[in-house]
Amino acid sequence: MAVSELEIVSSLLPSALDKFRKQSSFDWKQMKLNIEDPEQLQIKMKVWSFLASDPNFERLYNTLPPEEEKLYVARQLVKFHHSGIYANINTENYKIRTRYIMTVNEATAAFNPNLSVKHALGVSLFANALLTLGTERHYHFYKDVWDGKILSCLALTEVAHGSDTKRLRTTATFDIKSQEYIIHTPDEKAAKCWVGNLGKQCTHALLFAQLWSRNECHGLQAFVVPIRDPQTLLPYSGVIVGDIGEKTGLNGIDNGFVMFNHYRVPRDNLLNRIGDITAEGEFETSFTDPQKILGAALENLSTGRVAIIQESTNTLAMAVTIAIRFGALRTQFCDAKGEELPLISYQLHQWRLFPYLAAAFGCKVFIRKFSDEYLECVEQSNSSRDGDMKQMADTVSCIHAVVCCSKSFITWITRDAIQECREACGGYGYLKASGLGDLRNNHDPKLTYEGDNNILLQQTSNWLLRQSKELRNHKDMLHFPLTCVSFLCQPEICLNYRFTGKNIEDIFSHTFIKCTFDWLVCWLIQTTETALHSLLNQNVDRISAKNQTQVFRAHTLALVFSQSNILRYFWEHCQSVEKNLRLILEKLYYLFALWCIHKNMVLLYQGGYCEGPLLANLICEAILKLCTDLCNEVVSLVDVISPPDFILNSIIGLSDGNLYSNLMQNFLNDPQNLKRPNWWREMLMKPKL
Amino acid sequence: MAVSELEIVSSLLPSALDKFRKQSSFDWKQMKLNIEDPEQLQIKMKVWSFLASDPNFERLYNTLPPEEEKLYVARQLVKFHHSGIYANINTENYKIRTRYIMTVNEATAAFNPNLSVKHALGVSLFANALLTLGTERHYHFYKDVWDGKILSCLALTEVAHGSDTKRLRTTATFDIKSQEYIIHTPDEKAAKCWVGNLGKQCTHALLFAQLWSRNECHGLQAFVVPIRDPQTLLPYSGVIVGDIGEKTGLNGIDNGFVMFNHYRVPRDNLLNRIGDITAEGEFETSFTDPQKILGAALENLSTGRVAIIQESTNTLAMAVTIAIRFGALRTQFCDAKGEELPLISYQLHQWRLFPYLAAAFGCKVFIRKFSDEYLECVEQSNSSRDGDMKQMADTVSCIHAVVCCSKSFITWITRDAIQECREACGGYGYLKASGLGDLRNNHDPKLTYEGDNNILLQQTSNWLLRQSKELRNHKDMLHFPLTCVSFLCQPEICLNYRFTGKNIEDIFSHTFIKCTFDWLVCWLIQTTETALHSLLNQNVDRISAKNQTQVFRAHTLALVFSQSNILRYFWEHCQSVEKNLRLILEKLYYLFALWCIHKNMVLLYQGGYCEGPLLANLICEAILKLCTDLCNEVVSLVDVISPPDFILNSIIGLSDGNLYSNLMQNFLNDPQNLKRPNWWREMLMKPKL
Ligand SMILES: Cc1cc2nc3c(=O)[nH]c(=O)nc-3n(C[C@H](O)[C@H](O)[C@H](O)COP(=O)(O)OP(=O)(O)OC[C@H]3O[C@@H](n4cnc5c(N)ncnc54)[C@H](O)[C@@H]3O)c2cc1C
Ligand SMILES: Cc1cc2nc3c(=O)[nH]c(=O)nc-3n(C[C@H](O)[C@H](O)[C@H](O)COP(=O)(O)OP(=O)(O)OC[C@H]3O[C@@H](n4cnc5c(N)ncnc54)[C@H](O)[C@@H]3O)c2cc1C
Repeated sequence: MAVSELEIVSSLLPSALDKFRKQSSFDWKQMKLNIEDPEQLQIKMKVWSFLASDPNFERLYNTLPPEEEKLYVARQLVKFHHSGIYANINTENYKIRTRYIMTVNEATAAFNPNLSVKHALGVSLFANALLTLGTERHYHFYKDVWDGKILSCLALTEVAHGSDTKRLRTTATFDIKSQEYIIHTPDEKAAKCWVGNLGKQCTHALLFAQLWSRNECHGLQAFVVPIRDPQTLLPYSGVIVGDIGEKTGLNGIDNGFVMFNHYRVPRDNLLNRIGDITAEGEFETSFTDPQKILGAALENLSTGRVAIIQESTNTLAMAVTIAIRFGALRTQFCDAKGEELPLISYQLHQWRLFPYLAAAFGCKVFIRKFSDEYLECVEQSNSSRDGDMKQMADTVSCIHAVVCCSKSFITWITRDAIQECREACGGYGYLKASGLGDLRNNHDPKLTYEGDNNILLQQTSNWLLRQSKELRNHKDMLHFPLTCVSFLCQPEICLNYRFTGKNIEDIFSHTFIKCTFDWLVCWLIQTTETALHSLLNQNVDRISAKNQTQVFRAHTLALVFSQSNILRYFWEHCQSVEKNLRLILEKLYYLFALWCIHKNMVLLYQGGYCEGPLLANLICEAILKLCTDLCNEVVSLVDVISPPDFILNSIIGLSDGNLYSNLMQNFLNDPQNLKRPNWWREMLMKPKL
Repeated sequence: MAVSELEIVSSLLPSALDKFRKQSSFDWKQMKLNIEDPEQLQIKMKVWSFLASDPNFERLYNTLPPEEEKLYVARQLVKFHHSGIYANINTENYKIRTRYIMTVNEATAAFNPNLSVKHALGVSLFANALLTLGTERHYHFYKDVWDGKILSCLALTEVAHGSDTKRLRTTATFDIKSQEYIIHTPDEKAAKCWVGNLGKQCTHALLFAQLWSRNECHGLQAFVVPIRDPQTLLPYSGVIVGDIGEKTGLNGIDNGFVMFNHYRVPRDNLLNRIGDITAEGEFETSFTDPQKILGAALENLSTGRVAIIQESTNTLAMAVTIAIRFGALRTQFCDAKGEELPLISYQLHQWRLFPYLAAAFGCKVFIRKFSDEYLECVEQSNSSRDGDMKQMADTVSCIHAVVCCSKSFITWITRDAIQECREACGGYGYLKASGLGDLRNNHDPKLTYEGDNNILLQQTSNWLLRQSKELRNHKDMLHFPLTCVSFLCQPEICLNYRFTGKNIEDIFSHTFIKCTFDWLVCWLIQTTETALHSLLNQNVDRISAKNQTQVFRAHTLALVFSQSNILRYFWEHCQSVEKNLRLILEKLYYLFALWCIHKNMVLLYQGGYCEGPLLANLICEAILKLCTDLCNEVVSLVDVISPPDFILNSIIGLSDGNLYSNLMQNFLNDPQNLKRPNWWREMLMKPKL
């Protein structure tokens, strides 16, 4: 590795953690530059130094009241948008530009998700939608939003409909006379709701409404709808808009609702790449560019989800960093000699935390590579005019399916990791200054927005069921990225796999992991199909049959596939790196893989993949062995995946290792903590007579 | 059931939920009075009507800033303490009094856990400790605290030591000359920390410190230590006291830290029931009343934990109520005919929620009966002077073991339920007004305080391992409550159990459930013991060996035992009720039981209790069948376990079923929501030039 690259990563200062760091078997900087893309790391560093240097981004001791937090973040948004970080945003091609925006988003999200979400909804996702769904006539919006003249929101969800977007009821009716669209909210159940930036700040909405013309409905279409006067931020007449109030987290974002009363917008405000209304009110679909449309559809559905996976992976890494540093420094109870032991030396503690550390590495490696493939795919669809349509359609739906299950699995594992880390830090994990509460409360809505996890899994399982039909005996149809389910070409081979190992070496084997997961996916497909057919044969309709084959079947299938897919990327990455790093990465790979298998173990018995105690015993033994082996490495491993202290923002996770003096300083620094409050008289227990 | 009893429960008003309520097969009022103790229910109702009637207890739209929330709750504390609810607190015997305090605590905790925790730490637990650890000379504190002249806190935890209380380092050194104790904090790592009420409000601390006299340490003892002047609330000199700052929840409580600098307290302030220092500085243990001391020890360790179980069970019930009412009213996606379906009609949704509903019933039934047994046991130890010491010791350690694992299991299942309910309500679950975020953030520390769950489980597993030795072939030693592990007398019988069933009826059988759990507990004991001995034989010391046999072994053992024990109470309760209620309760029992077994299913294969697909298939099938069966009952079932709307405090869980108009009203009612904020200029994206 070039010296100059290593310099990207600043060295750690002397620390109470050094005794653990010295025990590790690898060079953490080298590992960091293997796990992170050096270029992207530099972009993040640039963002982080900007944030650390500007007083508008100072860390506060206490949560602000919701109104004040909105002000605080609104100020940060303005400041950040004009920081110069986006100065060259228009000079680059799609892939480079989007990669850049995603990387900046990762960096701001790690600092404060309120800020990153507001920017994404208000600027970058809106700008993206204009490019992909709009045409030249919308370019001025694109320019205005990057110039900071307007701010947007994305208004899809309604009071009564979230996941079921087909049933949205806001209408946009074309009025031939005035050549305008009349936007209308039929009743309060159709009010747009939950829309970020809408509550207080945005000037425009990218609004999804049912397009009507000549008494015919042309389905959900996107419109740019002015909401507030950009000069005064007062809503236009015909628009009732407000905030939906306090949430469990993300209170820096003004999530809002809006009702339109026969509100008129110009005809040009329909984003008309895919279809348009003629002056006479006819709807015309433009299929001149079917490949691009496929790509555009993918982009609009997936960019937000890919970003969520990136953000969640960082959150996972941050939570684990806090808990592992704390667990190294915190001692509790003694060994036989009376020496106090660090928490991470306890088997139970290792088992609670280390698999999440392994997961953080696996997810990081996966999403870095997969994001590239994703961007590549969109770019391809934009550039090639004469590609194979079927192939492109296959690619797009495959990527969509992978995004759906990965978003679900990774946001859930992050949710679980944050909670385990919080508990592993004991009482201190409950201190706001630990950072873990905010991580949890801000991460939580990721399970729901950009597609509820359980609903997204249905998309993946449906795709898998379809693929299992299409690919069976059709190796010829395999092309990248469909190769991720190549085993579906001959499922009977996988279904015949059995565990025949004898000892622990047979478990520490990539072949074992891969076969087990291939078997699991095939078996779950088979089980789901069998159940489905049995219902259909009983004359249950297809919709009901699908709904009745989720639990233990389609739902599990999608989750298992997601794990198997992430592990595939992880293993490939391991094989690409030099030996001293590879050894340790493989340990993480095995820990993550075996821990996932252990969670699915019943299925292996249920489906006859194994019998008797051997496999379960070996897997338990292997997991515990890996935990022991990793104990000397974990402190350096979290150095690899953690952001700088200012970003981590945890008083118990600081890299200097001065756990107790940092804590005590923190108690003493907040002036409110030592003061008798002004209202002390009200605290006297004896009531005034 | 007497009509007068039924009148305790007020009828439900006409509601959009009525169509679901009509489908249920039982009378919800009758069920409510079967699940709740009518007398305790009346006490709760009394507390709740008081709270609902007094403006100091009004619900607010927004979270207050931490300082203001402290004021708000401090005011409520004063008001509540003098509400007359505790007027007759001294007239009753131990059991009735404690039962009453516990019931009031349940009621206030369901309203606002800040209030209940402050009252418990400040008054009732302190008063209790004075009675159990103190003697006549401390009676004036007891009177003062109930009279509201003083307010206390319980100061055990230190900055560097939480779970490991033996290593606490605050000292209380007896000074013969002045006949005082000198309380001292050797360094900041020994500062008391996390202590509720200490941050701002308390006047006294019940402080645990290492007692030194004549250069000898006599272990941890409890002292009453004045902290602040009750007239001015200014700390006394020699005491540095402050708040530890914001937490993830419970910010109405002033958790504080304190450091003592050679701070003197009178000799009388040692709670001297168990031991005392003579004027000459000799330590004397008083073993006049060993039975009482056993009872006192149990009480001091367990009362708080029993209360946590009660509170958590209510929290579990509240979370499930919110999600099930929402899931009945919320429709999303259509059936084949195009009719929108309520969420609770989806298999996946049922499986996500109904097991937690079943758990709520199981835990409610368990803790109601168990609390009585617990209080009975403490009372017995207080009254009988010449009982069988060994028997009493056995009883006390058994109850302790059951409390430990139940506290862990029930707080964890509640944690998981809240999260699942939050996700099951989609975006709305993230609205503060849904109540779920506050339930989660306030429940969270229960996993840690009054004993970290993972540590508590070690107490239970240690006890089980001991019992398995003591009881083997000793049926004669079985007496209540040890009967809960009667199967340990002949473990080889249990270990020989095998699943031999053929179809689903063999699963819907109490014998099956009981045998499976007895087998599981015995098998886990055996597995843990084998692993332990193998380590000891390798010359690993006992402490390390214990630590290395937690994961997959002792830890799982304690959790499985806890489930099995709760299920035993649940089943016994089912058998005691009339048929129309019993049928439905048994369904809940089976759902809860099978769901627990499914989570432990690998062990059944690993240990050879079953082979092949049959048992796993049957259990999955049975769980799904129960979910379908219960779909028509769940709305009435949550009516049974839910508190009144004012207490539930969830805009999406109101019993009137007006989901969307309540939501919209809620958006519109908070005046801040519709207003352009004063700071609107700062939200303009275009920066001033
Ligand atoms: C913080 C936050 C920010 C948001 N920002 C925006 C925004 O900027 N713009 C915007 O338009 N929207 C936004 N949303 C809304 C978000 O997109 C929706 O919450 C999301 O799409 C889920 O829809 P829902 O909340 O209506 O849940 P529902 O669709 O009502 O689902 C509720 C539950 O029912 C389950 N369920 C539903 N259907 C089925 C089925 N067929 N089978 C089984 N289970 C089912 C789901 O799994 C879920 O658990 C935001 C939400 C949040 C929480
Ligand atoms: C909201 C709140 C209120 C509180 N109120 C009070 C109060 O009023 N008075 C008071 O005195 N205290 C109070 N506490 C402190 C509380 O009692 C402690 O947090 C609790 O005892 C746990 O101790 P700890 O936080 O030091 O965790 P630790 O003991 O440091 O444990 C941290 C983690 O390490 C694990 N661990 C520790 N030892 C082992 C081991 N041997 N093997 C395996 N794992 C291990 C634990 O499982 C835990 O996950 C409060 C805490 C909170 C959060």
